[in-house]
Amino acid sequence: MKANHTLRIGVLGPHDCSKEERKIGFAVGAELARQGAILLCGGLGGMMEAAAEGAKSERGVTVGILPGETASVANEFIDIALPTGLGAIRNAVLVRCCDAVIAIHGGYGTLSEIAFALRLKVPVVGLQTWSVVRNGKPDPGIHVARTPEDAVKMALKLATKSADRQ
Amino acid sequence: MKANHTLRIGVLGPHDCSKEERKIGFAVGAELARQGAILLCGGLGGMMEAAAEGAKSERGVTVGILPGETASVANEFIDIALPTGLGAIRNAVLVRCCDAVIAIHGGYGTLSEIAFALRLKVPVVGLQTWSVVRNGKPDPGIHVARTPEDAVKMALKLATKSADRQ
Amino acid sequence: MKANHTLRIGVLGPHDCSKEERKIGFAVGAELARQGAILLCGGLGGMMEAAAEGAKSERGVTVGILPGETASVANEFIDIALPTGLGAIRNAVLVRCCDAVIAIHGGYGTLSEIAFALRLKVPVVGLQTWSVVRNGKPDPGIHVARTPEDAVKMALKLATKSADRQ
Amino acid sequence: MKANHTLRIGVLGPHDCSKEERKIGFAVGAELARQGAILLCGGLGGMMEAAAEGAKSERGVTVGILPGETASVANEFIDIALPTGLGAIRNAVLVRCCDAVIAIHGGYGTLSEIAFALRLKVPVVGLQTWSVVRNGKPDPGIHVARTPEDAVKMALKLATKSADRQ
Repeated sequence: MKANHTLRIGVLGPHDCSKEERKIGFAVGAELARQGAILLCGGLGGMMEAAAEGAKSERGVTVGILPGETASVANEFIDIALPTGLGAIRNAVLVRCCDAVIAIHGGYGTLSEIAFALRLKVPVVGLQTWSVVRNGKPDPGIHVARTPEDAVKMALKLATKSADRQ
Repeated sequence: MKANHTLRIGVLGPHDCSKEERKIGFAVGAELARQGAILLCGGLGGMMEAAAEGAKSERGVTVGILPGETASVANEFIDIALPTGLGAIRNAVLVRCCDAVIAIHGGYGTLSEIAFALRLKVPVVGLQTWSVVRNGKPDPGIHVARTPEDAVKMALKLATKSADRQ
Repeated sequence: MKANHTLRIGVLGPHDCSKEERKIGFAVGAELARQGAILLCGGLGGMMEAAAEGAKSERGVTVGILPGETASVANEFIDIALPTGLGAIRNAVLVRCCDAVIAIHGGYGTLSEIAFALRLKVPVVGLQTWSVVRNGKPDPGIHVARTPEDAVKMALKLATKSADRQ
Repeated sequence: MKANHTLRIGVLGPHDCSKEERKIGFAVGAELARQGAILLCGGLGGMMEAAAEGAKSERGVTVGILPGETASVANEFIDIALPTGLGAIRNAVLVRCCDAVIAIHGGYGTLSEIAFALRLKVPVVGLQTWSVVRNGKPDPGIHVARTPEDAVKMALKLATKSADRQ
């Protein structure tokens, strides 16, 4: 497989999170690395750090798409830190760069990433995160997972389908 | 009041919409113009066109933040057509440019604008549109309006508060 | 002529400039307004302010594409202040939104706008500004003007040709 | 050294280039990899491909910041292909992500990257590329190199200084 065909999976989640939530992020990152996917995230702390730490624990590759202008704010588990200078708009660019995304918990930042992924037809897997409701019904665009392993499995499957369509 | 202190209110909604939905957009645009606000929108058809048509019916000023590279695709009620070349990411820039936004119906594009507005602390008024749910509860960030007049009143009030804080 | 077919001409120039340089910016803005064009600029001080002041002295319409997140920093001659939140990258979006641009003096910011305009095939008129040299020859993409009136005449002619091609 | 402190050096150059020009790009990429830097580029053909091929010949890491929405157009020497969906504006984001850039030959696209780098205070090394002239004098912001090895040496030195200042 050519390197540029390796799946890129985004892990989305909040800057502030509990120990329990970090464990989920770590497990998702570790499983992504075991499956050979590249991890993309926002590059900062909290869930982004937990997922990157998980990925590095399994020798995965991690990319941080940062909002600001300096790479030095990236968490220590990021291999390739990209300071885009785009501010919050980097959220849209981050999801655009992924073959699929996994959203875990999160606030408005994560919600903006989920919504942009839906808009850009980048598959979304949700783990204890937002749901979005239209006409009284939860939108099926967010694929709900139960466990980190489940989330990774779903994301890789959806990403492969999506990549095939290109 | 200095010209650059005129409130800029975004009207967000789908490209494809029914006659009934267009009536709502027209009424919102017209009321915004009567209240002296500048209307911002995505500049294309459907709800964006209906709102701009409403605003022009009351001699308002309309700005279209377009995704592509040509101004000529703007609807005919746009005074100032800005072809950003940003693709879908123009959604994020559009809401960033507003003092408040009113979302009416809409698909994933509108959802991405709502979510970005929440992220950027731009007040959001919703009229028969998405709700976003966290931990089983609808998030109060989307202020639900019942009528076009109601929506405009709420948006102007929230925008004024928001502008005062700057 | 439909409103959205009014030509949009960008005036590019430095934040810091001398009285003499401001006079040139004012004259360009005033002439653009007399010719019925919409003035776009970066919305801040110096040359951007001088050009907007000139345009308003002839009742023109002025748009400021701002780098930051607040409209209140716009100069007082801006009708429509758009705080894009894009930082320096707003330079690229600003020129993308224009049918032609006039660059007057300027530093690296103005150079970045000239270069992006060349890249995006937005016609560029230069007035005492940068030249860009390849293989020892000044690139003909920057159309050199001698006077403000000359610059406006050239920009409108080039913009009309460019708009016709769309 | 922490992974996210590895220097990221951009190689900028045209899509279309001669065999002779490709050799220069290959040599620059190879030398960057030998020196342990991460190579960033636009991810497409021509000079971007030559530089990435050079980097991979020395087992370097290569990142392609793509303009479009699909990763599959990346050249085969790109490890991490990031389809930003930003169109030509990706040029600005690409240089923003680098600690220094090396520009080789090139057209308006490369010029826009050089200019943005100057604007963003990202050090620029030029190898047979554009010069930019103000008041009749070539601007010293573009550090002129004679050979690929020279260019890499200068870029790494400037990047280190620049990173130290952060």
